[in-house]
Amino acid sequence: MSLDRSAVHNFAAGPSPLPTSVLEEAARGLLNYNGTGMGVCELSHRGKEFKAIIEGAEADLRSLLKLPDSHAVLFMQGGGTTQFASVVLNVLAARRLAHASTPTEQYEPPVLDYVVSGSWSAKAYAEAQRLALNGDGKPFCVPRLAASSKEAKYTSLPSAYDFSAGAALAFYCENETINGDEFAGVAGTDASFPFDKVPKDTVLVADYSSSFLSRPIPNIAQHGIIYAGAQKNLGPSGVTVVLVRRDLLVDTTAAMKLGGVPAVPIQSEYKTLADNGSLYNTPPVFPIYVSALVLRHLVAQGGLDKVAEVNKAKADALYASLDAAEATGAVTCVVRQKAARSWMNVPFNITNGREAEFLKGAEARGFRQLKGHRSVGGIRASIYNAVTLESVHKLCAYIDEFAAAA
Amino acid sequence: MSLDRSAVHNFAAGPSPLPTSVLEEAARGLLNYNGTGMGVCELSHRGKEFKAIIEGAEADLRSLLKLPDSHAVLFMQGGGTTQFASVVLNVLAARRLAHASTPTEQYEPPVLDYVVSGSWSAKAYAEAQRLALNGDGKPFCVPRLAASSKEAKYTSLPSAYDFSAGAALAFYCENETINGDEFAGVAGTDASFPFDKVPKDTVLVADYSSSFLSRPIPNIAQHGIIYAGAQKNLGPSGVTVVLVRRDLLVDTTAAMKLGGVPAVPIQSEYKTLADNGSLYNTPPVFPIYVSALVLRHLVAQGGLDKVAEVNKAKADALYASLDAAEATGAVTCVVRQKAARSWMNVPFNITNGREAEFLKGAEARGFRQLKGHRSVGGIRASIYNAVTLESVHKLCAYIDEFAAAA
Repeated sequence: MSLDRSAVHNFAAGPSPLPTSVLEEAARGLLNYNGTGMGVCELSHRGKEFKAIIEGAEADLRSLLKLPDSHAVLFMQGGGTTQFASVVLNVLAARRLAHASTPTEQYEPPVLDYVVSGSWSAKAYAEAQRLALNGDGKPFCVPRLAASSKEAKYTSLPSAYDFSAGAALAFYCENETINGDEFAGVAGTDASFPFDKVPKDTVLVADYSSSFLSRPIPNIAQHGIIYAGAQKNLGPSGVTVVLVRRDLLVDTTAAMKLGGVPAVPIQSEYKTLADNGSLYNTPPVFPIYVSALVLRHLVAQGGLDKVAEVNKAKADALYASLDAAEATGAVTCVVRQKAARSWMNVPFNITNGREAEFLKGAEARGFRQLKGHRSVGGIRASIYNAVTLESVHKLCAYIDEFAAAA
Repeated sequence: MSLDRSAVHNFAAGPSPLPTSVLEEAARGLLNYNGTGMGVCELSHRGKEFKAIIEGAEADLRSLLKLPDSHAVLFMQGGGTTQFASVVLNVLAARRLAHASTPTEQYEPPVLDYVVSGSWSAKAYAEAQRLALNGDGKPFCVPRLAASSKEAKYTSLPSAYDFSAGAALAFYCENETINGDEFAGVAGTDASFPFDKVPKDTVLVADYSSSFLSRPIPNIAQHGIIYAGAQKNLGPSGVTVVLVRRDLLVDTTAAMKLGGVPAVPIQSEYKTLADNGSLYNTPPVFPIYVSALVLRHLVAQGGLDKVAEVNKAKADALYASLDAAEATGAVTCVVRQKAARSWMNVPFNITNGREAEFLKGAEARGFRQLKGHRSVGGIRASIYNAVTLESVHKLCAYIDEFAAAA
């Protein structure tokens, strides 16, 4: 059976849906960009056409996020998983250069503070532990837990924070795609990240992959590094946006010469990317092009305050249906702390052995990609920017109906 | 003026032209993949649709290249520039693990042999030198030149080779995109890489970015690692194919624990990618999808022997016109060693101050992206797989006409 796009409501956790109008324009650009007789993937990344695309994307991103000029915008490759390492490598190099006169044997490996609130921040923490390894020598850094909600199986955010004075970085993941908990939760501010507890000289790092562009970023200027894989609210997979405060654009080769830091592949050096306008080598042209179209689309919609209004309406509606269904015993919401509920990824479980029945009915109604992450199972409805309020209302109606039929 | 694709002949050095039929199919898939009602960029990379795409791409690649099962196929991100580092990191880890019982203080940094025949191999060599840096400690490796044609300004291949017994790797770049020299040159075998001089235990590494899939790969099984950015003959930029002999799929964390090796970001570990079928994290879905379509297209054309026949005809025709024009004094070919002439990238200079005249006439005839790399200037005609013999004949006719009008 061949389906039309309008017959389908795509709740994928990522790669996730994109606006149809954007995809239509991208399909035209793929064959013939702006009447050049060449497709966008067939143009030099150093030509005037692509230069306009990437510069336009940066300008729209800055305007949407109100990003101050203190921060550079980089378009990189490799996704959030690659940034787990790049963040550590660049921050450690910056720290080493700030102590350039200290001989390596006297240089103390810096502490790295991690807030672990779900699967992705746990992975970031694990990567820092790997990069600390230095055989028989001193470790390159000392990663530690500043907070964790692992004991609560990530069904809430951490309840206590213990940041280290002098830590080189403090890391958090704003929205946990798999677990469904988020700092700037739906209910309001009481679950927000404790920005005031992070020491002033510590580089604040946020993984924003799955909530990027869903609303304005609180305290954006306090962050040293914010990164996001595109494949949620921004564009197709294959490009990662990294916002870096300019004092972190450092010469990693000089740090490697000093010693006491892990090696930094040149392609992971933020300074190299910044110095070359993200064109040190060939960038992922098509993912950047589609991201640029999505950014234009968001600007045309009225910016992130408008986007946030719609997203709040979507999340409120879905959680209201789930709470009502939970009261009947038909479902349980995974995240127990209401203020920590993500408004992008909504995991829930179907009780009484009715999961297959739920999924079958969902499939028949055109709902797609509702299965939870393979590591946790259950159901997950991701309601990114390109999922319409209408699609969410249809899902809500189905949940209401399903709960009533229990 | 809006142009049709048929009005344009695209000689870009990369990102470069793709077959129109492939782009037409990709444009449909972008909106609605196989009647799912969802575009290919909106599908989970772990779903059955994308699994079929990436597995099909690997199967077609193996069949086209006659790649033995001793080698894994990885789809990575970051381009050749990222592989400059990844190659070194994985090979050094493998070497360290092969000497696991040697204490770090007694472990001798291995020699890495580089053949430098142009700008890209020079960059690969420079990256190895960076990664050797270890502050006050022993270097992680000892990169050295096994051969170089720098003195000839890369207008020929190296004339002598001096590989080290016991070197951990021997690196060469099969085709130099900027300089236009290539080991398996158009004229025949006399410029070929000296495979028999590489010690048996040395890992042979080839950067194949700009000649990948232009013909069969000579001595493919002797190589430990072959990599290629997609954006020449394979697909859109954003994906890099890496062929790795399975003994090089090693646990880099274990090597880092032993010490004496540079840190390896997890995303650069070949083993992790191989263990996860290139889906350790979200891959660049669209570039892989289009690459899969191109691979299907090449299989349908009859495989790489057929592709090579057409490419040889294109190169022979273009060099014949250039040689004739050089005889009139109107142009000079950059690469002076005829057997080393690339059949993918053909750089030449227009003499007598007529370059602007040449480019103006070229533009009027629909020839596009003929300017040489910004580092060397001049003209460069890249005649990748998707450039038709007809387009090359039209360029030849123009060169003939231009030379006659001198």
